[in-house]
Amino acid sequence: MWQEISRFGKKLVDTGLVGSYFGNISIREGSKIIITRHNVPLDKITENGVVEVKVDSSTDINSTASSETIVHRKIYQMTPALAIIHAHAPFAVIQSLVELKDYIIPIDVAGQLVLHEIPVVHGGIGSFELAVNAGTALRDYKGIIIHGHGSFAAGETLEEAFTITTQIEYSCNIKYYVELAKK
Amino acid sequence: MWQEISRFGKKLVDTGLVGSYFGNISIREGSKIIITRHNVPLDKITENGVVEVKVDSSTDINSTASSETIVHRKIYQMTPALAIIHAHAPFAVIQSLVELKDYIIPIDVAGQLVLHEIPVVHGGIGSFELAVNAGTALRDYKGIIIHGHGSFAAGETLEEAFTITTQIEYSCNIKYYVELAKK
Amino acid sequence: MWQEISRFGKKLVDTGLVGSYFGNISIREGSKIIITRHNVPLDKITENGVVEVKVDSSTDINSTASSETIVHRKIYQMTPALAIIHAHAPFAVIQSLVELKDYIIPIDVAGQLVLHEIPVVHGGIGSFELAVNAGTALRDYKGIIIHGHGSFAAGETLEEAFTITTQIEYSCNIKYYVELAKK
Amino acid sequence: MWQEISRFGKKLVDTGLVGSYFGNISIREGSKIIITRHNVPLDKITENGVVEVKVDSSTDINSTASSETIVHRKIYQMTPALAIIHAHAPFAVIQSLVELKDYIIPIDVAGQLVLHEIPVVHGGIGSFELAVNAGTALRDYKGIIIHGHGSFAAGETLEEAFTITTQIEYSCNIKYYVELAKK
Repeated sequence: MWQEISRFGKKLVDTGLVGSYFGNISIREGSKIIITRHNVPLDKITENGVVEVKVDSSTDINSTASSETIVHRKIYQMTPALAIIHAHAPFAVIQSLVELKDYIIPIDVAGQLVLHEIPVVHGGIGSFELAVNAGTALRDYKGIIIHGHGSFAAGETLEEAFTITTQIEYSCNIKYYVELAKK
Repeated sequence: MWQEISRFGKKLVDTGLVGSYFGNISIREGSKIIITRHNVPLDKITENGVVEVKVDSSTDINSTASSETIVHRKIYQMTPALAIIHAHAPFAVIQSLVELKDYIIPIDVAGQLVLHEIPVVHGGIGSFELAVNAGTALRDYKGIIIHGHGSFAAGETLEEAFTITTQIEYSCNIKYYVELAKK
Repeated sequence: MWQEISRFGKKLVDTGLVGSYFGNISIREGSKIIITRHNVPLDKITENGVVEVKVDSSTDINSTASSETIVHRKIYQMTPALAIIHAHAPFAVIQSLVELKDYIIPIDVAGQLVLHEIPVVHGGIGSFELAVNAGTALRDYKGIIIHGHGSFAAGETLEEAFTITTQIEYSCNIKYYVELAKK
Repeated sequence: MWQEISRFGKKLVDTGLVGSYFGNISIREGSKIIITRHNVPLDKITENGVVEVKVDSSTDINSTASSETIVHRKIYQMTPALAIIHAHAPFAVIQSLVELKDYIIPIDVAGQLVLHEIPVVHGGIGSFELAVNAGTALRDYKGIIIHGHGSFAAGETLEEAFTITTQIEYSCNIKYYVELAKK
């Protein structure tokens, strides 16, 4: 499954949704999580670029795993998700800093259809607070924004998580430019 | 012909005119339409990524075909088009939400030459209203914008439909930034 | 030499300086001009995608040659240039429409060093007026902007013309955003 | 080691951080610096695209080396850096011209974590003043901005210098758009 992670890692970087050395991707297989390693460029993931951790054991520390592993694990514990993508989608971050609201409401048709609204949650990188807030929000939504930080998208497949990530960025991009012109 | 659809699908995604899992492409061959399937990434279309439907039969339902098949069919019924591209061209969507007018008038020389003006039509995704409005507008224009949703371009070839799509996005992009600076 | 034209055509499209079916590229070899054909995608130029015309004969009409052939020819007649690139560089067009001045003065260090200032000339697509205005301006400058239309860059090599084109776009991009924020 | 330089040169151009014929990259090996040549496209560096100069000898002039060689040399003399990337990161340049401050403070979480703040230094291209100012600032920071000109990032590896460069651009991009919307 590392090939699928590698393919979507490259798509994320190529489409400007995250820098090579930021963001992380994981998939769930039963009681295991396959997640990208810390400091591995997402657009050049090899078999050795991912690591396996357990879904349930919070004592299963792996220092080479992504610094956001705690968040991925909590999302898998709290939701039926089988794939998670965390990106630094620029306009998702920008709009969260501009609106300062708990939910961003898309104004484009696709965003309204796919996302309805986008919850904005808080919590430090790799913190328990972020893990719980992300897990809770992703029970009701497929994609969320971490205030000033980036996006988390969860789905049955990486394909779905990638689609949600691109739609979040797209909807925030559209809303930013429309509201700027109407000021 | 799926190879041509695949080639332009990749061009659309690579140039940021649509996300991998949005938009749709079709070509007409006599009484048949070859159209992209629902949930197939436009930048990775294989032979199995397209499906054939009839131009005329409105009872020819194919649940795997694009959700916008009704719009493509109506355009082929109402115009001499042989190729259609629907994208979520971002600045086309943005400018339709900023101007709130029935026509967007390009201010760049290429746009004035190629498009003259760009009709903005209304109607829900995959709705009969959208199908009729798009078909009607494309009798007189090669490219249109669906308010808050995206672009439809029709031509004799996918090459022409792609050119129209890129020019719509380009002209809306130029107009947006020029008007923003002049506010 | 069509390979060089093809290589820079792809670079222009890949870097967003022109759409696949817009812009044109030529090189001079003695009394001949090798120029891209009309309606050939710049990012997919083959040997058959270019055509040869004469520098001097204004009666040498080739209907398959770029619609801007008259401008390229005049530039070669009036300057020592051996390579010309015409692109629709977006922020070059935007800034020409925002400033409405005869010269755009870069505010970034690289632009000041490479371009000093950028003349903005007028004239319709493929018009004699444009040809003369472009040729005259390119006697004193390596790169110019056609008001509301695009950029022309001339050099000893396509590499130089490409560098000038990218710098024009870069400098206009920087100036646009800085002036927008300072309004 | 030219392969590594070539790989990151291509990444820089592909991600819009610098034009093909701008910017420069170097690595240190003991008392030697391997640096990109002047007028070599960063996205197409071959073995012949780099040149070797000495870290210490200021009399070691190599006319084919990057025009910023003096800055790279001074940084290696004044810091433990083993790899340096100089790019024309657009929003780094824009934000330095907008804020006109000695330090740009990121407002995104990743930027605050990775960069804390970004020093803005002054000095002409290839000048001794720039060399000393850059070397001094890079004793305390991994990445800096040259006012109106571009970014310099230094690290143990090109991977680290590239990450710093992308984060500088990302943080300046986020801050620019957020502050523009809040005006």
